[in-house]
Amino acid sequence: MSARLILVSNDDGIQAPGLRALCRALVPLGRVVVMAPEVERSAVGHAITLSDPLRVTEVDLEMDGVTAYACSGTPADCVKLAVLAVLPDRPDMVASGINHGSNTGVNVIYSGTVSAATEGAILGIPSLAVSLDSRERDNLEPAQAIAQQIAGQILETGLPKGTLLNVNIPDLAPDQLPPGWLEGRGYDLTVHGKADWQDHFDRRVDPQNRTYYWLAGHRQEIHEESSTDEETLKAGRVSVTPLHYDLTDHQARKTLAAWDLFKPE
Amino acid sequence: MSARLILVSNDDGIQAPGLRALCRALVPLGRVVVMAPEVERSAVGHAITLSDPLRVTEVDLEMDGVTAYACSGTPADCVKLAVLAVLPDRPDMVASGINHGSNTGVNVIYSGTVSAATEGAILGIPSLAVSLDSRERDNLEPAQAIAQQIAGQILETGLPKGTLLNVNIPDLAPDQLPPGWLEGRGYDLTVHGKADWQDHFDRRVDPQNRTYYWLAGHRQEIHEESSTDEETLKAGRVSVTPLHYDLTDHQARKTLAAWDLFKPE
Repeated sequence: MSARLILVSNDDGIQAPGLRALCRALVPLGRVVVMAPEVERSAVGHAITLSDPLRVTEVDLEMDGVTAYACSGTPADCVKLAVLAVLPDRPDMVASGINHGSNTGVNVIYSGTVSAATEGAILGIPSLAVSLDSRERDNLEPAQAIAQQIAGQILETGLPKGTLLNVNIPDLAPDQLPPGWLEGRGYDLTVHGKADWQDHFDRRVDPQNRTYYWLAGHRQEIHEESSTDEETLKAGRVSVTPLHYDLTDHQARKTLAAWDLFKPE
Repeated sequence: MSARLILVSNDDGIQAPGLRALCRALVPLGRVVVMAPEVERSAVGHAITLSDPLRVTEVDLEMDGVTAYACSGTPADCVKLAVLAVLPDRPDMVASGINHGSNTGVNVIYSGTVSAATEGAILGIPSLAVSLDSRERDNLEPAQAIAQQIAGQILETGLPKGTLLNVNIPDLAPDQLPPGWLEGRGYDLTVHGKADWQDHFDRRVDPQNRTYYWLAGHRQEIHEESSTDEETLKAGRVSVTPLHYDLTDHQARKTLAAWDLFKPE
């Protein structure tokens, strides 16, 4: 039995089938502790809770090797609270997911699933986010095997400081998997795609004659670099994107240095 | 009268004094339309609202040259909705703030103020976020002048595609400003600092004997690159950080390429 401690979170909430699949993937690799939102917290971005206290309730997921807590906060709250106040030891890895639905392109910025892994990376812990490109809840086994393989690799090799992995898995049935998949020939090391949603709002009028708006959108065809997260996923392969949270635009810094404002006397 | 259209938002809400100060700064530069959260939405990260409809109410801020709307959503929602559904034309700039409190270091990731400007950049519009390093609400005049100067520069020069500016202003009274401040000698082009909060949680017990947690934290001394946002601010200078939303860790990509998973057959 490994002494490794693995923290699991998500944004679909403590009762999500994807969370259980991720636990099953990780139990062979170490002791698993879950700290997940008590309710769904999708698209909360990297929100943290400052104005309300956080509450934690132990939950029995009826899984061997798994201790689980539900938290009143966001995914980022869950990871921060678990690491700083609840876990007995510092975890060796933070894993978030398995999200029901992909997190690619601009969506990554909004993703609660990714934000839990980002919080892990901020705290200096090797972290990954895992998402399955399906809203159905019945095809988690291939994703579970893939999560296990990547998590095993992270525990073995580590990750560069400040890097987290964003893993997106296509929705393929086990018998559709390309040969050699689990030997690693279905993985691409990708970049974060940046131009693949076209949003609009539906304008409607309620029975009291008041206007309201629903966000709607569709994915655009992508014609950029061949190795974006979204393209890889659409090609039926697993996308693994290393992300960081250094938001400095170093290239733009060089351009802006020409502004008079920044000229020395 | 300029035909330029400037969209203003924030995360402190439509009634914040900082929002009014930003409007005053921008009215001389163009037609100002405000779309701001109806209530405070700090630390919501880059949240967007998918599960609820958004409502918009026109608000009279009693300022010449300013049309204002309160929105039920987050700062990112406000910008997206204004640009895609409410504004008659595409804005020439998105400005967010003036936030009451700085947005530097790791806080940038959590910031609703910055997320409004990020949404502007995602939509392809030159965008800036402006924050004042003070929770007091009575020293907005220098910040207003500085916001005007930087916004004027952006309208004149533009910004590289995908870049937004994160501006942080120290809390100095007008008579404390260094000589030459408004001629640009108080500005530094900085990087996003990454290690300046030390979080912890206060564990407390409520009258019903249930445990709860408050997030608490203090800033750590910084000993990294000399030109971080936080250091510049502490030195009494205006920090201007170009940010992007390409989250790919390109450096880590090179390291991870050595993993067997990504080796071609």
